[in-house]
Amino acid sequence: MTLNEIGIKAKSASRILATISSADKNKALTYIADDLEKYADKILEANAIDLANAEANGMKASMVDRLRLTKERISGVAEGVRQVRDLPDPVGEVLGAVKRPNGLQIAKRRVPLGVIGIIYESRPNVTADTAVLCLKSSNACILRGGKEAINSNSAIADIMIDAVKRAGLPDGTVELIRDTSRETASEMMKLNEYIDVLIPRGGAGLINAVVNTATVPVIQTGVGNCHIYADKDCNPKMAVDILVNAKTSRPSVCNAAETLLIHKDVADEFYALASEALKEKNVEIRGCERTLEKIPNAVPATEEDYATEFGDLILAVKVVDSTDEAIAHITKYGTGHSECIVTENYTTANEFLDKVDAAAVYVNASTRFTDGFEFGFGAEIGISTQKMHARGPMGLAELTSVKYIVTGNGQVR
Amino acid sequence: MTLNEIGIKAKSASRILATISSADKNKALTYIADDLEKYADKILEANAIDLANAEANGMKASMVDRLRLTKERISGVAEGVRQVRDLPDPVGEVLGAVKRPNGLQIAKRRVPLGVIGIIYESRPNVTADTAVLCLKSSNACILRGGKEAINSNSAIADIMIDAVKRAGLPDGTVELIRDTSRETASEMMKLNEYIDVLIPRGGAGLINAVVNTATVPVIQTGVGNCHIYADKDCNPKMAVDILVNAKTSRPSVCNAAETLLIHKDVADEFYALASEALKEKNVEIRGCERTLEKIPNAVPATEEDYATEFGDLILAVKVVDSTDEAIAHITKYGTGHSECIVTENYTTANEFLDKVDAAAVYVNASTRFTDGFEFGFGAEIGISTQKMHARGPMGLAELTSVKYIVTGNGQVR
Repeated sequence: MTLNEIGIKAKSASRILATISSADKNKALTYIADDLEKYADKILEANAIDLANAEANGMKASMVDRLRLTKERISGVAEGVRQVRDLPDPVGEVLGAVKRPNGLQIAKRRVPLGVIGIIYESRPNVTADTAVLCLKSSNACILRGGKEAINSNSAIADIMIDAVKRAGLPDGTVELIRDTSRETASEMMKLNEYIDVLIPRGGAGLINAVVNTATVPVIQTGVGNCHIYADKDCNPKMAVDILVNAKTSRPSVCNAAETLLIHKDVADEFYALASEALKEKNVEIRGCERTLEKIPNAVPATEEDYATEFGDLILAVKVVDSTDEAIAHITKYGTGHSECIVTENYTTANEFLDKVDAAAVYVNASTRFTDGFEFGFGAEIGISTQKMHARGPMGLAELTSVKYIVTGNGQVR
Repeated sequence: MTLNEIGIKAKSASRILATISSADKNKALTYIADDLEKYADKILEANAIDLANAEANGMKASMVDRLRLTKERISGVAEGVRQVRDLPDPVGEVLGAVKRPNGLQIAKRRVPLGVIGIIYESRPNVTADTAVLCLKSSNACILRGGKEAINSNSAIADIMIDAVKRAGLPDGTVELIRDTSRETASEMMKLNEYIDVLIPRGGAGLINAVVNTATVPVIQTGVGNCHIYADKDCNPKMAVDILVNAKTSRPSVCNAAETLLIHKDVADEFYALASEALKEKNVEIRGCERTLEKIPNAVPATEEDYATEFGDLILAVKVVDSTDEAIAHITKYGTGHSECIVTENYTTANEFLDKVDAAAVYVNASTRFTDGFEFGFGAEIGISTQKMHARGPMGLAELTSVKYIVTGNGQVR
């Protein structure tokens, strides 16, 4: 199939999905979950080919781990599908309705976006995770994963396409682009006629490439250069706990902290507590001059370090003279993801909440909570770091649009 | 100033605007309204230059009329500014808050988008209309109007910039790009570092150019190929009233009807009533074969006619065999703006509401009501025909984003 043909099929499916019942969608989701487990061996066989190719191509171990599926991982994906199935259907919800003075009734109804394009890298679980979120919110999806995972992705997609068909949902509900050349990716990004929204899932390089190439509207997700600011009025013990959690509980994810900003007045007390804790977790510290004086095993931080999402056990540190300086640093280097102040001071906390421009701004809690599950959405397709459409964790509601339903009895203007 | 310098100023202003009080914004809006009236002569002098240039360049009369300002029009703009001032401030509203099982409190707070870029054509009133909506919603704006109106736009912008300054708002709150070359427009559309959202205001040509060039997120507005479908169960008198209103009350606007679809069973009765009414309003009818048989002075409709937003006293007409055929026609040719069915049949009405994919779907009322004022928003920056971020009339709320405020007492994950 050409990309245009895929687009036509998906668009056509999306029109049927827009009016389909929750029961029919849930049936398809049950079939998908069951079949992923039932045909796990097929998926693992395909995955083995991808893994063999990866090794032959000298892919590094952390990448190979992202690519690798196991029976347990597949069961985890299937369990995730069932959880999505059991969430409330976002489509059809009325977000408000008014009766105007002329008698017109105007209701705002949640409707699907239409066709969602997902562009992602080498994690084959994304194929199922994202497709079922699209399906639950009555969107058709066009998936385009990385070439490293094409065999795994094809196996998973085939299972989903078959399940969707048996459940009586339209052909085109789930589509996978199997030609993984760069050309098809670029072409997909300009398929405005058939794709309503593109959601890239991956690193900053992928996301920037999509933003710069796409004419289809894009939702930017997941780049997180997050800061913990330990204010002069912080509880140092709490600040250390939050820092260690935000930095080390899962360093590769986007809501992990990358930089510590610390008020000069608490620097000594803080470092006394933090040095040991960070050392225990093997965190490399890249510090400003004032930090180097206090932590002997720290290395000097460069400008580049403050701008980097390490995704690793590395922490940039800077001592600041004031909350304003901390906010200015965050404004300069932050990516608008998650930012945290630790303070007991009411006024300082509110100032930080007001002035810091990010999807999630925290007082006295780890940035690691920026997540659709932790926020209570029950699911997550990504964390938007842009301001249009959706900001922060995106659950099912963020995969919808609205339509105004206007009912009258002959009103003219 | 280079475009980069304008961007830096606007971005910096937007950070201050994000935390400014409603009272300060309202003071600036009062000054703007008063000064537009006080310095109306200056605006009219500048407008006279634009009008003289337009005539020298042989601009057609309808375009010249869009460009022309009068004392009354300026007072109308000033009155509009005062109306916007008196609307509730959208910024700071909390859209919901939850307490999670771990004690974290998560609130969703409305915040400004940041910097809004407006690209428009030759109506100088857009300069003030859009700038004050941005200001009221705490956004900085960068305006880029058509070269035909540059003198008028500069005069209006100068007055606003001075008023904003006297009110103590930051430099950069309102910016006008005074170099109206194509290059600056293209450059503006890629100014992702400083502009958060672009809103083009104008015809389909302008909007498509922006969508295809911009890397900054775009909100598409205002292209309306709207249909009135007179169902077999319609009240023909009501259908004619709605059609005549939707077609003729203001044919140049985007919520005007362009095509009539009529069920074959009511075609005779409908035409008997409609022909005279449309003739009285000088509406040219371009019809399908079955229409031509019934309305002798109709001309044959081409495929192109059904796809055209005439913006004029021209109506395309097609007889259909069923509601499904009407919906399929709308799906094929509609622009997702406003679509109307006239029917007394409950099931047919609901089917139309469910299946037609548009910003506003009507039963028994004129499409002309798709408008921020008619919807009760008190203002409008445009009518979004896309599904991301905002759909339908965009008031102040649609010029905002959200931020999650997460407060805890040391929670870690």
